[in-house]
Amino acid sequence: MDDKNPILDLIARRNAAVARGDAEAIVAPLSEEVVAYTLAPPLAHSGAEARDAKAVEAWLATWHTPPRVELRDPTVLIDGDLAVAFGFAAMRSTTADGEENVMWYRTTTVLRRRDGEWSIVHEHESVPFLMDGSDKAALDLEP
Amino acid sequence: MDDKNPILDLIARRNAAVARGDAEAIVAPLSEEVVAYTLAPPLAHSGAEARDAKAVEAWLATWHTPPRVELRDPTVLIDGDLAVAFGFAAMRSTTADGEENVMWYRTTTVLRRRDGEWSIVHEHESVPFLMDGSDKAALDLEP
Repeated sequence: MDDKNPILDLIARRNAAVARGDAEAIVAPLSEEVVAYTLAPPLAHSGAEARDAKAVEAWLATWHTPPRVELRDPTVLIDGDLAVAFGFAAMRSTTADGEENVMWYRTTTVLRRRDGEWSIVHEHESVPFLMDGSDKAALDLEP
Repeated sequence: MDDKNPILDLIARRNAAVARGDAEAIVAPLSEEVVAYTLAPPLAHSGAEARDAKAVEAWLATWHTPPRVELRDPTVLIDGDLAVAFGFAAMRSTTADGEENVMWYRTTTVLRRRDGEWSIVHEHESVPFLMDGSDKAALDLEP
């Protein structure tokens, strides 16, 4: 039985970094070859572009306060030095008016271990979209 | 070096099943515990619901001809009995008027090997959405 705790700890530390608006700590667990499929376009951010703390800072600046991300009951699969964690995440935010918003989305994280250290090599975050002709992202789904 | 060919073959066989509209062959490589994050809502389809060939047949019936799915240059990671493949996929379709459509999306597939046989335990397919206030799915992106 592989130990899931280092994977869960890495994800929890990263979400804590989001909550305190710490861009450097958000990108720190990303490996040099990371390929990230994010909620917003483009299709992918790769390598140095995905690990750009300045871009993360610009994203954080679009929020009134940093959003709080919670990954609920993720499934974690590990074999040797490869691991996958997936599940539903909630991103909670507070507007300048004090309004609380929540968006649930799907997240899949792939990690590799090198020299005893896990890092993220792939991330996939998304919401589905409505195939009713509106092509709208489904932003109000709940698990 | 792990052999990527069984993973690439499984994905290619599945896409061939889509192209010929073979619902049973589309769900065959899904494991019993599969969790699928699809392009359309809900957030996830799990287990028997994801492996329901009747539902896949109903989806196929919404197309004039079965769509053709091509996964371009996927990245494949394997350690022991766990594998991940991710990349951009193109879904090409032909309307009743003979119009050709293509939609590029991101796909992440997680597989486990049991008794020498790989099967899909997790799938994540998505397009990003526009954060310009429209909340529209970005259906016209190209790699």
